[in-house]
Amino acid sequence: MNKPVNPADLEAGSFTVTTGPLPASQKVYKPGEIHKDLRVPMREIALHPTANEPPVTVYDTSGIYSEEGAEIDIYKGLPRTREAWVTARGDVEAYDGRAVKPEDNGFAEGKFLVPEFPIKNRPYRAKDGKAVSQLAYARAGIVTPEMEFIAIRENMGRAQLKEKMERDGESFGAEIPDYITPEFVRDEVARGRAIIPSNINHPESEPMIIGRNFLVKINANIGNSAVTSSVAEDVEKMVWAIRWGADNIMDLSTGRNIHNIREWIIRNSPVPIGTVPIYQALEKVGGIAEELTYDIFRDTLIEQAEQGVDYFTIHAGVRLHYVPLTAERVTGIVSRGGSIMAKWCLAHHKESFLYENFEDICDIMRAYDVSFSLGDGLRPGSIADANDAAQFGELETLGELTKIGWEKDCQVMIEGPGHVPMHKIKVNMTKQLKECGEAPFYTLGPLTTDIAPGYDHITSGIGAAMIGWFGTAMLCYVTPKEHLGLPDRDDVKVGVVTYKIAAHAADLAKGHPAAQERDDALSRARFEFRWEDQFNLALDPETARDYHDQTLPKEAHKVAHFCSMCGPKFCSMKISQDIRDEAGKKNAWDFLAMDEDAKKGMAEKSEEFREKGGEIYLESGE
Amino acid sequence: MNKPVNPADLEAGSFTVTTGPLPASQKVYKPGEIHKDLRVPMREIALHPTANEPPVTVYDTSGIYSEEGAEIDIYKGLPRTREAWVTARGDVEAYDGRAVKPEDNGFAEGKFLVPEFPIKNRPYRAKDGKAVSQLAYARAGIVTPEMEFIAIRENMGRAQLKEKMERDGESFGAEIPDYITPEFVRDEVARGRAIIPSNINHPESEPMIIGRNFLVKINANIGNSAVTSSVAEDVEKMVWAIRWGADNIMDLSTGRNIHNIREWIIRNSPVPIGTVPIYQALEKVGGIAEELTYDIFRDTLIEQAEQGVDYFTIHAGVRLHYVPLTAERVTGIVSRGGSIMAKWCLAHHKESFLYENFEDICDIMRAYDVSFSLGDGLRPGSIADANDAAQFGELETLGELTKIGWEKDCQVMIEGPGHVPMHKIKVNMTKQLKECGEAPFYTLGPLTTDIAPGYDHITSGIGAAMIGWFGTAMLCYVTPKEHLGLPDRDDVKVGVVTYKIAAHAADLAKGHPAAQERDDALSRARFEFRWEDQFNLALDPETARDYHDQTLPKEAHKVAHFCSMCGPKFCSMKISQDIRDEAGKKNAWDFLAMDEDAKKGMAEKSEEFREKGGEIYLESGE
Repeated sequence: MNKPVNPADLEAGSFTVTTGPLPASQKVYKPGEIHKDLRVPMREIALHPTANEPPVTVYDTSGIYSEEGAEIDIYKGLPRTREAWVTARGDVEAYDGRAVKPEDNGFAEGKFLVPEFPIKNRPYRAKDGKAVSQLAYARAGIVTPEMEFIAIRENMGRAQLKEKMERDGESFGAEIPDYITPEFVRDEVARGRAIIPSNINHPESEPMIIGRNFLVKINANIGNSAVTSSVAEDVEKMVWAIRWGADNIMDLSTGRNIHNIREWIIRNSPVPIGTVPIYQALEKVGGIAEELTYDIFRDTLIEQAEQGVDYFTIHAGVRLHYVPLTAERVTGIVSRGGSIMAKWCLAHHKESFLYENFEDICDIMRAYDVSFSLGDGLRPGSIADANDAAQFGELETLGELTKIGWEKDCQVMIEGPGHVPMHKIKVNMTKQLKECGEAPFYTLGPLTTDIAPGYDHITSGIGAAMIGWFGTAMLCYVTPKEHLGLPDRDDVKVGVVTYKIAAHAADLAKGHPAAQERDDALSRARFEFRWEDQFNLALDPETARDYHDQTLPKEAHKVAHFCSMCGPKFCSMKISQDIRDEAGKKNAWDFLAMDEDAKKGMAEKSEEFREKGGEIYLESGE
Repeated sequence: MNKPVNPADLEAGSFTVTTGPLPASQKVYKPGEIHKDLRVPMREIALHPTANEPPVTVYDTSGIYSEEGAEIDIYKGLPRTREAWVTARGDVEAYDGRAVKPEDNGFAEGKFLVPEFPIKNRPYRAKDGKAVSQLAYARAGIVTPEMEFIAIRENMGRAQLKEKMERDGESFGAEIPDYITPEFVRDEVARGRAIIPSNINHPESEPMIIGRNFLVKINANIGNSAVTSSVAEDVEKMVWAIRWGADNIMDLSTGRNIHNIREWIIRNSPVPIGTVPIYQALEKVGGIAEELTYDIFRDTLIEQAEQGVDYFTIHAGVRLHYVPLTAERVTGIVSRGGSIMAKWCLAHHKESFLYENFEDICDIMRAYDVSFSLGDGLRPGSIADANDAAQFGELETLGELTKIGWEKDCQVMIEGPGHVPMHKIKVNMTKQLKECGEAPFYTLGPLTTDIAPGYDHITSGIGAAMIGWFGTAMLCYVTPKEHLGLPDRDDVKVGVVTYKIAAHAADLAKGHPAAQERDDALSRARFEFRWEDQFNLALDPETARDYHDQTLPKEAHKVAHFCSMCGPKFCSMKISQDIRDEAGKKNAWDFLAMDEDAKKGMAEKSEEFREKGGEIYLESGE
């Protein structure tokens, strides 16, 4: 079902989102072995009986929204499954939490104020300044339910392949195991090579992992802006984005109602939610960067940590002495967070308050297990600025901060560019791994040329596939509206599907076990003219079907043994099948070993073939 | 102007195509130095006066269709500019040519027969079996008008950059000069490293070159099929594809009226036209591959050579002993030409008649200067089949045939895959260069995953950008309809723009001189909020403008110093400009060299900045 959202529905109590399974798909849940009560979601795509193949299992980010018959109530939020896991560890306490202040919602009031989420939970935090991060548990040798959940989730498809698995690919130093154990997950987290974004106050989330020895993930950005906003639209965009495969969502809202909209999103999100807290902090000082203080920023961190944000982009690497390095750039500083901090540093002629207070920030992050996404505030905004002193200087600082974060038991990933031509992509990855001790890299694109506004999902999809291959753990999507406007529903889908392509292409090239299973299943369907299977196995079954129907709309054509490109009389796939059948039928190739004289004697045999089955063309169904 | 085509208009005599300049663009022509009468087309994009920059010159494939006030008459065809060059060489003769036979148009008659093109020219051919190919001239040390035309065309933008040019990039052994001379063009053609597709019977074409030391080119496929066909649609698709940047067009028509439709296309095409002659030959034998003979094929070559087809895809590398190598593939043989030949070989248990008669084919090609595009009939149709024995075996045979073609003074390029995961792309290029003596590579995609039907312009755009970087000279586009249906007008545009992105990304990464000029101009426009310039410099100005207007439709917003992503109060680009202004105004960065005490003394100065200009945000225009 595809229910379009009417923003007015929120207040009317009739607010709904897109629900129902994808074509031929059903949600299945796998149990744990260590933690028996785990229910790890996967999607099974059933094939036509003629395929004589089992269903194809794929990674499923869509939560219960895609489950047939699931009870979904946006006004209640998702089940708080992880709450029991969090409290069972005995190291957290519930408390009253920070009171919502008028500035949290940009002083919106009356009809301009988005209603609060109906249910209020008391937040949790670590007892006695303890670390309650997955990193702290991993280092203590504890395999959390989150870790086992992830092991099962990531193994999807590998178990049944154990025998026939042929490893292929070039992983550039990644160490992807044949099979992922909960212990492997623990070890990767303990080494800082992977993170599990999982704020203890977002118990609705289904655990996922970001690290280069796991499947490449993608992030979709949503959020209202000062120009346009609607809570119903934003929640639906979140549900819509995860339906098509977004592993994470960043809420990049600016303007008013940030606090209340975020609450609706988090309570209904089965995927981790990231934010850039400086955006909200800036709203609190009326948009004047110079008025920012660490206290306001700190209060915003706590506000958002209590709500359950899973990772914060923090631009603590924009140090004062890097700012002048950007003055001669073609496009200066294009990161919003980066420019806010640069402006602040410049106005005060002082070092960044984020950098100066980094250890205190760590103490907050670890009390809720909010992961760091160390922002690249000086990323290039044009290919002319790629890999310059400002960008790489900041990256070195991010490496220094990574180590501080780790000392504090905080989970850390690093954000990356931006606009980078193809030949300059690899060094970004190599340098990031070196400077940041293999902490996961999380890149925006990169865009490989600047000349195609309107198509920047493609200019960046090229760079994303490549950097994903080289080792980036999560790719931040770019939509066709990049640089031009706010993505609508269609743009979100195109952005997500494009980045699923990039991530999957990277998984294949890295030699990820079982990644190719879906490709092969789809290609077999294509070769055998199982049109429905081809659509259903596609990343976007709706578009595949729609495009087919534009040329051959009749239902009969979906079982036709030809396609619209060649028509019924002229089909290369059909000829190939014929060759294969021929090869199976008799020793058709024996004659290749014969000498020339013997071959001449084959004329008769050849004639026989032509009489028997040489005509392989089917008549048109029309 | 954008005139949609009504197929019925052809017979009504009111058939038109899309004409008129792109936004802010004008066609300019540059003269030659050796051949003074040359008029080499380029497009100049004018910028807003506030930019204080000269117009940006870009490569222009669109012919006179995009020229303001040009006289365009589809019923007359384009001016036959090259005819004088061809006859001036004194080595060709006009003759009556082959009579059109009923089977050339699939026996279509009456209302089903597409009308012949109104004007009939006598074809030319080489006198006395001579070679009239650009390769023959190049080897003889002759710089033809075609070669000088190309040198001027390829240099676009380089002349004015001679001083400031900073070479960058990784070219993987390509030898791209700072500046292209006519002599360099001649030398590259003589060495077989580049081809100039230029049938002497297609004098309407504007010369272009395909070689890895030149700009990466793209090809767009058009053509009717047995399922659907219309001459008006096909001619408009050609004009439409070159409007957006297609360097070459392949007419892949099957079904009826092939001969007559092709004539309309060629007479109106300023870009080289390629075909796959075996398609038409197959139609002549009722679609029964076994019935094909070399005589029928040969007659088809002459038919098409007389019409002016500039390059033929010939699958002469599909040898009998390779066919069994495909039997165990996931997707067998997916090339139409390849499967026809495989079927023929299998049915007759004989070596391919294309391979056996290759020298005779060469004699025809050189008599008209039709270039070889040696087809990869065994290219992989799924990533599972990439780089297998069948594919690479055929490539070795293509290398052998390349040398025979060269001995015969024929121009040769080589077609490549197909479906190839990223980690297996590079070896395709390396092996092609080695086996085929650096003859230009012309690849389809490759598609880097099979799981996204409906988005295969993107799955393949990733591979195309990469293989273009590695050295492919021309990229064959893939549209969103690949595997699903026939591309419509919108699909053609999306396919062309996607491949322009891939080609340009490759040029940048190869370190092509001046390639980055357009990126930089657009990025400056973006940074300075020159919205109109940003649209006009885009590969697709219409889509860029449309996407912008969806969020901020008012005309006033196109001069607004903010964009819809952040809104008026919160703009990183604006902050950056402020930083730059600040840097220019005073020695804002001097204090970085100060010691800590001195920095503290800066508090006063900082306060002054905030009072003077700290507030940089503009109010919303709303």
